[in-house]
Amino acid sequence: MALSENGPTVAVVGVTGAVGQEFLSVLDDRDFPYGKLKLLASKRSAGKHMTFQDRDYVVEELTDESFNGVDIALFSAGGSISKEFGPVAVDKGVIVVDNSSAFRMVDGVPLVIPEASVNPDAMAHIRLSNKKGALIANPNCSTIICLMAVTPLHRHAKVKRMVVSTYQAASGAGAAAMAELEQQTREVLEGKEPTCKIFNQQYAFNLFSHNSSVKENGYNEEELKLVKETRKIWDDDEVRVTATCVRVPVMRAHAESINLQFEKPVDEVSSTNDVAVGRIRRDLSQDGHHGLDIFVCGDQIRKGAALNAVQIAEKLW
Amino acid sequence: MALSENGPTVAVVGVTGAVGQEFLSVLDDRDFPYGKLKLLASKRSAGKHMTFQDRDYVVEELTDESFNGVDIALFSAGGSISKEFGPVAVDKGVIVVDNSSAFRMVDGVPLVIPEASVNPDAMAHIRLSNKKGALIANPNCSTIICLMAVTPLHRHAKVKRMVVSTYQAASGAGAAAMAELEQQTREVLEGKEPTCKIFNQQYAFNLFSHNSSVKENGYNEEELKLVKETRKIWDDDEVRVTATCVRVPVMRAHAESINLQFEKPVDEVSSTNDVAVGRIRRDLSQDGHHGLDIFVCGDQIRKGAALNAVQIAEKLW
Repeated sequence: MALSENGPTVAVVGVTGAVGQEFLSVLDDRDFPYGKLKLLASKRSAGKHMTFQDRDYVVEELTDESFNGVDIALFSAGGSISKEFGPVAVDKGVIVVDNSSAFRMVDGVPLVIPEASVNPDAMAHIRLSNKKGALIANPNCSTIICLMAVTPLHRHAKVKRMVVSTYQAASGAGAAAMAELEQQTREVLEGKEPTCKIFNQQYAFNLFSHNSSVKENGYNEEELKLVKETRKIWDDDEVRVTATCVRVPVMRAHAESINLQFEKPVDEVSSTNDVAVGRIRRDLSQDGHHGLDIFVCGDQIRKGAALNAVQIAEKLW
Repeated sequence: MALSENGPTVAVVGVTGAVGQEFLSVLDDRDFPYGKLKLLASKRSAGKHMTFQDRDYVVEELTDESFNGVDIALFSAGGSISKEFGPVAVDKGVIVVDNSSAFRMVDGVPLVIPEASVNPDAMAHIRLSNKKGALIANPNCSTIICLMAVTPLHRHAKVKRMVVSTYQAASGAGAAAMAELEQQTREVLEGKEPTCKIFNQQYAFNLFSHNSSVKENGYNEEELKLVKETRKIWDDDEVRVTATCVRVPVMRAHAESINLQFEKPVDEVSSTNDVAVGRIRRDLSQDGHHGLDIFVCGDQIRKGAALNAVQIAEKLW
């Protein structure tokens, strides 16, 4: 039983969403030692009952007052909610672990994959015992899954250039997108026109460029997140990264094909926890031992979002 | 009406398969001017009736005698059939356009994408009027779709290095694989265990490394085909190519994410027929104008197999 007399009060913001629900599942799985739990969502979901670890909770409407007495808030309710309520929570002394992109590239906000092999040090100054509010950003799912695999290689042989092509699941666009993929697939199998609400085009038995907005240079937001977040997490403005992000009709596991060019030769490769790394090949298109092709795969909602955030929270003691 | 008094006698070998059926559809679409048509398949399918352009045909069993009087044979019945019957046909004066991998890398056998922008010259010496048998190899589907897009860029600015990640359809593994994807999808939606016969693992809502055999260097056959066939088609042993080939749960269109490093700057980009080229971006990970990221897509059965072969046949006059 993870309910603990002296544990922190934890708020889950956006608890009715796909990641919000996964926050609860991960807190349970990991026996996260909370003292009290607050489930927060929009007015529309307020009043809904949820059971967690055999207790009944009522979802409360998210307001400025929601954060009174809260120690840790896990946010996953979209960027605009984070922008509005994140600073309010911090002012009230809350440590906010934010799953949106709102603060990822803000100077002074740590962007963290908390495994020892990546960058827990970036948040070393933020501790519950300080009794001070702070923001910590959870990286984008594609970045987490990529850097879980590649960071140990980077520390070993320094990545000069990385070319990523993604195979991204419906879950990255939320629970409604997963439901739409399922509904469309049924419709296509029945010979009907697929219903397109979330994505504006057929997703069943199809693939398309990631649905984030496309910038002037032709890259979409998802691709640029991989570029910018990698540089911030590695604290390396020199590393060259390019990406092509594609949605494929799978439910919740993201996969990525990653080509790596290293500064130093790579002598050995060991895989890392939680993200599956496979198909490790010496890159045929490079001389000597300076290149690898790998294929990685990880759960988008779990390590790509909720698990990473809870792992961050676990490092706050 | 494409039946023409003086047209060549055309044999379709493997006519009951996915590509075999597409051969007929493409011959019809393009009003291919054949004199007589022979439909050949294994003993199991012999005797089957098929209608083509309002005529009834009986599928004949493929034997050495099948090629008597044939001018052009379109083969798509697998590598071992090609190896056994291709040379027999050539000895009988037939021009064989082979869709298998059996002869692709054999010295002296042209490996052809017949568009003027790629390499029709490689087969310039083979003509129906010569009345001489010959082998012409159809490249692998992934290679055709890739090089349709990239060859014009290569002629313009010389590709030094190419990194390809594929998103490949069920059709590449034949009609039975497409049926299995459909059946599995129905089963998964009904909460049942998916039936795995062709692929040995779940394909519905899933993806996996291309099912060709994996070599000692970790690359699978499909990936190595892209490397070797590109070099042969471009007649360039220096070009550096690496690939990661992945099956995604779509029916028959292959897509590829391609990262290109050029020797010279690329000033303009124009797209090519039949294969859609999009998402053209100056590669963020390279200096100046020496790199591009592109995404290409083409029908695996049509331009990736049957159409390319028929286009080759059309160049034989």
